[in-house]
Amino acid sequence: MILHGYYRSSASYRVRIALNLKGLTASHVPHHLRKNEHKASDYLALNPQGFLPALVTDDGRVLIQSLAIIEWLNDTHPEPALLPEDPFERAQIRAFALAIACDIHPVQNLSVLQRLKREGLPQDRIDFWARDVIEKGLDACEILARPDTPFVSGDTPSLADICLIPQLYNARRYEADVARWPRLTAIEARANALKAFADALPEKQPDAEP
Amino acid sequence: MILHGYYRSSASYRVRIALNLKGLTASHVPHHLRKNEHKASDYLALNPQGFLPALVTDDGRVLIQSLAIIEWLNDTHPEPALLPEDPFERAQIRAFALAIACDIHPVQNLSVLQRLKREGLPQDRIDFWARDVIEKGLDACEILARPDTPFVSGDTPSLADICLIPQLYNARRYEADVARWPRLTAIEARANALKAFADALPEKQPDAEP
Repeated sequence: MILHGYYRSSASYRVRIALNLKGLTASHVPHHLRKNEHKASDYLALNPQGFLPALVTDDGRVLIQSLAIIEWLNDTHPEPALLPEDPFERAQIRAFALAIACDIHPVQNLSVLQRLKREGLPQDRIDFWARDVIEKGLDACEILARPDTPFVSGDTPSLADICLIPQLYNARRYEADVARWPRLTAIEARANALKAFADALPEKQPDAEP
Repeated sequence: MILHGYYRSSASYRVRIALNLKGLTASHVPHHLRKNEHKASDYLALNPQGFLPALVTDDGRVLIQSLAIIEWLNDTHPEPALLPEDPFERAQIRAFALAIACDIHPVQNLSVLQRLKREGLPQDRIDFWARDVIEKGLDACEILARPDTPFVSGDTPSLADICLIPQLYNARRYEADVARWPRLTAIEARANALKAFADALPEKQPDAEP
């Protein structure tokens, strides 16, 4: 498999964690977001959205959208399960993942912040925007995470944890007040103690910059 | 079941379509978005995100996030299927749905537009923001939709169509150039000819305003 990604792209980071949890390997092809490499015509031919990541399967088919890729990995490589069997529990984990993947990350990602800059917002208001979206979003996640399990909703990492850890990474990058999320940061510490999460960290990737 | 929603909320609209396709009924409890009724403490107790919709099941459990709710409806009421059996095809449909639910809708929804207003953007730039996000996003969807099937990716409506139709509704509301999407608007015409989609239209809801 080939993973088209970028070391600091949250969505690529999610897929790296999922691949590691499943014990799968992929060749990583980096596309530098700030140099607009994801808008090059050869990449747009793979993904008309021009967003990262895209996964090319062993038989040459292309999948886009990190959550769809992770569900596909889970459907085709069931162990270890990233979603529980029970439909209600599965829906709760998907809801947690979507609360991040729909309502936090897309509103604070680079393309929106660049759009704000083009609209003339000063840098301090752009930084506030990113931090405020992350803080309000993760405040809800702190309530949604189960209080009685080591991970977001169980004894092992799920799709919810796969979305949470990259979002917390972004929270620190934008200097959000992480102390307000004792439950989420405890989950983060447990997750990052696992090799699957540690190896997926942005700074561990070959395209990482100092 | 009880669906907490709002007639013009895209995410509520998606769940209404899914319920109708499954032949299920729910009591509708409206929360007026512009009057901030979704930020009232009794609703926040149901959904800490303070976003619509939320679905309360017959046994009183609460589900949030439209895509998680629809997957749950599909898991618990398998017919008619809103996702195909094949994992790759399923991933493609989820990717199409997520391209809208993550990358278009959250960046043009009311809460972001209100945020732009608070930052002092003039109304014409806010209107441009919404329209531009929708146009660029649906341009990609026009390429992602299959050219050889009556719906986005098959002979019957799927999760992809359920996300597409409310997004096209928003596109018209923000006066986007819908003529650039001949494939998507042909799917829209086919979908809205079905009772499940027609009955879910915002203007058909009891809380609709003139």
